Amino acid sequence: MQVNIPLKKVVDNSYNITIDSLTKTHFDTKVAIVTNPKVAGLHLAYLLSKISAKELYIITVSDGEEYKNQESIDTILESLFNHRFNRKSMLIAFGGGVIGDMTGYAASIYQRGIDFIQIPTTLLSQVDASVGGKTGMNNSYGKNLIGAFHQPKAVYIDPHFLTTLPSREFGAGVAEIVKMAVTFNRGFFEFLESADLKNPDVLQEAIKQAVQTKADVVAKDEKEHGLRAALNYGHTFGHVIENETKYKKYLHGEAVAIGMVMANETAISMGLMSVEEASRVKALLEKYDLPTTYNVKNSDNFYETFFLDKKSSDSNITFIIPVGIGDVSITDSVKMEVVISVLNKFGEV
Amino acid sequence: MQVNIPLKKVVDNSYNITIDSLTKTHFDTKVAIVTNPKVAGLHLAYLLSKISAKELYIITVSDGEEYKNQESIDTILESLFNHRFNRKSMLIAFGGGVIGDMTGYAASIYQRGIDFIQIPTTLLSQVDASVGGKTGMNNSYGKNLIGAFHQPKAVYIDPHFLTTLPSREFGAGVAEIVKMAVTFNRGFFEFLESADLKNPDVLQEAIKQAVQTKADVVAKDEKEHGLRAALNYGHTFGHVIENETKYKKYLHGEAVAIGMVMANETAISMGLMSVEEASRVKALLEKYDLPTTYNVKNSDNFYETFFLDKKSSDSNITFIIPVGIGDVSITDSVKMEVVISVLNKFGEV
Repeated sequence: MQVNIPLKKVVDNSYNITIDSLTKTHFDTKVAIVTNPKVAGLHLAYLLSKISAKELYIITVSDGEEYKNQESIDTILESLFNHRFNRKSMLIAFGGGVIGDMTGYAASIYQRGIDFIQIPTTLLSQVDASVGGKTGMNNSYGKNLIGAFHQPKAVYIDPHFLTTLPSREFGAGVAEIVKMAVTFNRGFFEFLESADLKNPDVLQEAIKQAVQTKADVVAKDEKEHGLRAALNYGHTFGHVIENETKYKKYLHGEAVAIGMVMANETAISMGLMSVEEASRVKALLEKYDLPTTYNVKNSDNFYETFFLDKKSSDSNITFIIPVGIGDVSITDSVKMEVVISVLNKFGEV
Repeated sequence: MQVNIPLKKVVDNSYNITIDSLTKTHFDTKVAIVTNPKVAGLHLAYLLSKISAKELYIITVSDGEEYKNQESIDTILESLFNHRFNRKSMLIAFGGGVIGDMTGYAASIYQRGIDFIQIPTTLLSQVDASVGGKTGMNNSYGKNLIGAFHQPKAVYIDPHFLTTLPSREFGAGVAEIVKMAVTFNRGFFEFLESADLKNPDVLQEAIKQAVQTKADVVAKDEKEHGLRAALNYGHTFGHVIENETKYKKYLHGEAVAIGMVMANETAISMGLMSVEEASRVKALLEKYDLPTTYNVKNSDNFYETFFLDKKSSDSNITFIIPVGIGDVSITDSVKMEVVISVLNKFGEV
């Protein structure tokens, strides 16, 4: 005999991303702001001048990708238990992508899921990590290998936080903006070529377009069954670079910048992108002082490391290869020889 | 400016529960059977005579509620990483409720979520834990405080596994069956009063009715915003009993049996249940040798421990109080004095 559990229903995980100065807000629940000591020192006073709650707690975890791990998650969860957070309580992620991913993941597993809000403080997290509901942490096997899809209730992008951003971190954010343009929006790419993102008004427009581009993609493919994988452009190569350099030498956006150049070279080999188009992407990246090359010491080892990446399936690696500028191919049929040949060129650097 | 992320969509998490002997099945993916040494010794040969896969792995974790923790989750996840499981791979939970909850939780966070199937081997997990998608683990703060809602792709309830079930574990399963009947289905309760569950055909019918009852509730309230909380009848008290006895003295179903008697006494105090109805519930529990009393040493301490339970909100504890037999009240307005007075009676045992 058989019993059916009918769980087909309309689920509404919609939310708004507000790109503007924060307005004063009071929450009638327990709220914990999760941040790191550096962001707290720079910006917590400003945030606390805007946000209040029935009960407000501040939780700090160590700053950096190397602390995006179980210990930091435990630090967050223990504090929630100690202060008896319940299912109606809320977390606020206040920092860059690492803080956002970990706070979202902690919110997803605390008592089987509570709400959270994103207030990203870096350009990179404003345009990328804060949109789309991917949460998670790293472990010894690689990046983001443990996690959940857990959408925030709202995202607030306040340009105020970018005033203190070091120029390397600014560039890392630009890399993800370029990514959105190359993969999905040729017009946006041309806007970027002619724009000066150091101008705050221009930057705000670019943030909006990047977020809108990502929003369109995520709305079509929330859980990355297809299209959303295109947002990994530059990431397949970039993750290996981060892994080889132990997350120390490059910021995430910088590794992605190099990864995009590698993907472009692969596209040229496959006849999907012209040398001129690849040069334009490279020039845009270099305009913001992003690295565009990398010394591949051993192409075979580099290739083997792809398989640690979760986007890979059993025997084939999924590559995101640009088709000119503004379009993209998600393919698991790129020949190993083609990739090795591209990597060998980078080995000569 | 504002960007909306439109994530309203139809999500279909429906699945079937098959109550019958397993049929031969081949999976064209990587599959890991997660079990414990005891269940594996008793039943793995039978399971392997039914199930095959492109690549099949067996993962065992220690047997018992005290191992429903992060270490066991890590054991499962590490094995998946070592064998390069990907997003198309699948887990099979093969054991009781502890195995089911942990396997489901590991599946929910591995690479942001992979599929899993439940093959429960105890009566309790067949009628309760395998239905509804609650997954999780315990920590030092209490039971199931970390977890996720992650629905299985299918549940297979094979009566074969009950042939080796110790009688105490059989009783623990009966307690959850009684729970479904008292809270939602008076006719089912009367069927149970007249039935002998030791008869395999009668038992199969009772399993089906229990599963169907729970399925109806979960379909209406998947994430326990309301109605589903009624399934915690007996659990609010039961969790404290398990906590006080450090999960050693009573099986989960046994603690729930005592908890139901406590909830019934509370119902009598509140005029919601007659003494005669409470006696009938107690008699049904005792027919299967379930414990129905407990020595409360300190009612105030017992009461305070309710607040560790995640179902409690800020200041009020949610109690599930039967209204006669076949109906139930979910209420957070039971006066502390009423509960203390009920607990004091149990203190005299």
